[in-house]
Amino acid sequence: MFARRTMSRNLSVLLGCLSLIISVAVAGPEWNILSHRTKDGLSISLRNYCESWRMNVELHNIREFQVVPEECVGYIGKYVTSTQYKVDSERAIEEAIVYLSTSCNLEKDGKDAWIFDIDDTLLSTVPYYKKQHFGGEKLNLTSLEEWMSQGKAPALENSLKLFNEMKARGLQIILVSSRREHLRSATIDNLVNVGYYGWTSLILRGPDDELMGVQNYKTEVRKQLIGEGYRIWGIVGDQYSSIEGLPRAKRTFKLPNPLYYVS
Amino acid sequence: MFARRTMSRNLSVLLGCLSLIISVAVAGPEWNILSHRTKDGLSISLRNYCESWRMNVELHNIREFQVVPEECVGYIGKYVTSTQYKVDSERAIEEAIVYLSTSCNLEKDGKDAWIFDIDDTLLSTVPYYKKQHFGGEKLNLTSLEEWMSQGKAPALENSLKLFNEMKARGLQIILVSSRREHLRSATIDNLVNVGYYGWTSLILRGPDDELMGVQNYKTEVRKQLIGEGYRIWGIVGDQYSSIEGLPRAKRTFKLPNPLYYVS
Repeated sequence: MFARRTMSRNLSVLLGCLSLIISVAVAGPEWNILSHRTKDGLSISLRNYCESWRMNVELHNIREFQVVPEECVGYIGKYVTSTQYKVDSERAIEEAIVYLSTSCNLEKDGKDAWIFDIDDTLLSTVPYYKKQHFGGEKLNLTSLEEWMSQGKAPALENSLKLFNEMKARGLQIILVSSRREHLRSATIDNLVNVGYYGWTSLILRGPDDELMGVQNYKTEVRKQLIGEGYRIWGIVGDQYSSIEGLPRAKRTFKLPNPLYYVS
Repeated sequence: MFARRTMSRNLSVLLGCLSLIISVAVAGPEWNILSHRTKDGLSISLRNYCESWRMNVELHNIREFQVVPEECVGYIGKYVTSTQYKVDSERAIEEAIVYLSTSCNLEKDGKDAWIFDIDDTLLSTVPYYKKQHFGGEKLNLTSLEEWMSQGKAPALENSLKLFNEMKARGLQIILVSSRREHLRSATIDNLVNVGYYGWTSLILRGPDDELMGVQNYKTEVRKQLIGEGYRIWGIVGDQYSSIEGLPRAKRTFKLPNPLYYVS
């Protein structure tokens, strides 16, 4: 009797293991399958939960977040180092090229302009955030600026393609970044080293600009550029604070970035 | 010799089959694995491609699309009938409730207002688009309006929750839809039958409104509401044309919708 019970227990453990192995094999390399439950009882996996967090950041429904939710750090880390992230960014850039080719009647008088963000638009900060728990730790400005001052950020390849396309079409390229003035020479070195050169203006935040939010700073810059006679055909940025507010550009393109939020 | 070659060929066919079975099992239930190749040679799967299309629709980088790309109809169909779609929408609604609870100092003078879209915000058109190749076919307005006139659209459950939350807080609920006036009674029946009642105003497009784009029509409505003294605390919509343009609401919430684009 005892032996039979042990055998049947062993059998059920074996079957349990087998079904776990099968379900893992069928589910494939999803990075999390822990179950959450929402208020209305809908059972959702951690993967669904983290994906909905990411999607709602991109939809600009989730704002002002300080850190990536701890339980989603693994998911977000996978995303920003995935092919999907590259393909998502590439598609955004392709749409900007389509717009440039079909909808921009450039006047070629030296006043046709395009604005780029720098971080996570031209240069990737993913190598930095990889060491910072992929956005799971609160921003440490000193450490981030130290990393930036090394000038080792790699280019986002698709953005470089767009940058060169702009140059070839005679657009004035204006770089508007929330990086602070003291990072100017490190930023220039970094940009040039990875292939960006030939911009018209590099605008960084001076002490006065630091007193206002980034969105206000960037709208002020646009106001000034328009005052100088520039037509801003478009902006590519990874933050809503780079593309929202008045005056607006004729079109804007938002690159994905679930790592941090700048307001 | 011949027998050995046959055997080794059989063995390699067998190994090939085995590796196919294993790779399918490991890849799991992804709905497409056809390979595309981008201009810079990056190899991407159809799943990556369609996901990047969807993501860029939500980022508002892809605009004015007439149909869902044919090769992505299966992918988009899976998304809008998935748990992920429900969880994504639910998170958007939860963020609206958080905003309402933490950032809205309602004056409770009958002028605190909230705007809702109808289609794919309060009511789901997914059952209709299921029969229309999930956005893979060009819009047939006659057929869509015939379906709407039957008043059989189900509620989006999370939106109903938010709607009731608004009512409980004493907000004036204004429904602003691009549906045309002749659908008024069918729309009211449909809304009431699935649980929506107690709104302040249902604004549909009259003949004059049809002459302008939907975004202009909706900004005109907001202008008029503000003129009547309403404070528009927020908008929930599934189209950028519902939330963009001036005058703006204090906050906006965008629900996912990769099925069609209204400008």
